[in-house]
Amino acid sequence: MAFHVLTAKPEDALRLATAVRDVKDRVRHCSVCYNLTDADPCAICTDAQRDRGQVLVVEQPKDLIALEQTGMYRGAYHVLLGHLSPLDGIGPGNLTVAALVERVKEPAANSGGVQVREVILGLNPTLEGDGTGLYLAGELRPLGVTVSRLARGLPSGGQLEQANKAVLADAIQGRRSLE
Amino acid sequence: MAFHVLTAKPEDALRLATAVRDVKDRVRHCSVCYNLTDADPCAICTDAQRDRGQVLVVEQPKDLIALEQTGMYRGAYHVLLGHLSPLDGIGPGNLTVAALVERVKEPAANSGGVQVREVILGLNPTLEGDGTGLYLAGELRPLGVTVSRLARGLPSGGQLEQANKAVLADAIQGRRSLE
Repeated sequence: MAFHVLTAKPEDALRLATAVRDVKDRVRHCSVCYNLTDADPCAICTDAQRDRGQVLVVEQPKDLIALEQTGMYRGAYHVLLGHLSPLDGIGPGNLTVAALVERVKEPAANSGGVQVREVILGLNPTLEGDGTGLYLAGELRPLGVTVSRLARGLPSGGQLEQANKAVLADAIQGRRSLE
Repeated sequence: MAFHVLTAKPEDALRLATAVRDVKDRVRHCSVCYNLTDADPCAICTDAQRDRGQVLVVEQPKDLIALEQTGMYRGAYHVLLGHLSPLDGIGPGNLTVAALVERVKEPAANSGGVQVREVILGLNPTLEGDGTGLYLAGELRPLGVTVSRLARGLPSGGQLEQANKAVLADAIQGRRSLE
């Protein structure tokens, strides 16, 4: 990037500088779901075509983008902006947990005012993600909302013999009857 | 291997030759589950501690070994010795499908004579594996046996953003409510 700026025409470099400033000026977190957005609430939270009674919780905006690209999900999201990590001093107060709990208790008026029926935990399938999920489930279940989790098992397209023990154990435990 | 044989002592080379001959002489397929074994029926099929009413169907013996290493499964197996592949001319007759159907209809007397309750499809999560699974489910369901499939979804230990679209779609569709 440095070499590009050095060899670029002055007006191009200036345009880049303006663009960088604009990004920091305009892009912020949506006040409902904490996704990155230039309009508040974001385009997903204000989309009446989506089922805002379903909230998929992810760690980071990039996870939301990956899930959106599948085209399989038509509900709303909530971005935690991280996961619980007591050793690094990251507790619930450093994440957007309170806002999620608030949103389940009291539907966000600026996002259609739809009552949340189901919270889907879409955290990373890691130790930290599972720990965060367990904590969230404990906070959310007393509020009378259904808490579910993304499926764990064999990754489509892979080979069974290359899967590690944890993946195979998940696949055996989570097996489902075929209709 | 060639260099090892050339530099080895004559008696060591002879011992290797005997071992190779013995493998081909002694190791064959179990007549119940078609796993590789030197005793027929194999140690898994004759193990009364295992639930032989549950049969996990895999493509190859190496898949069976991977599943055994998890220590999570205490039922019996059935090795298909491949998957359906019409373009390569591999149909049900080239696999051990008939033996599986027979085993579900009539419990194998030399494997405890236990009635099969559940067939778990543990084929590779690929196009060919899914096709073979669909065919097997069609053959087995009319026999009144429960047919299930290993769970498909996010691989434990991975990162959500690195999962491909097919994996994420499986994860969303197969999500499960937390107790």
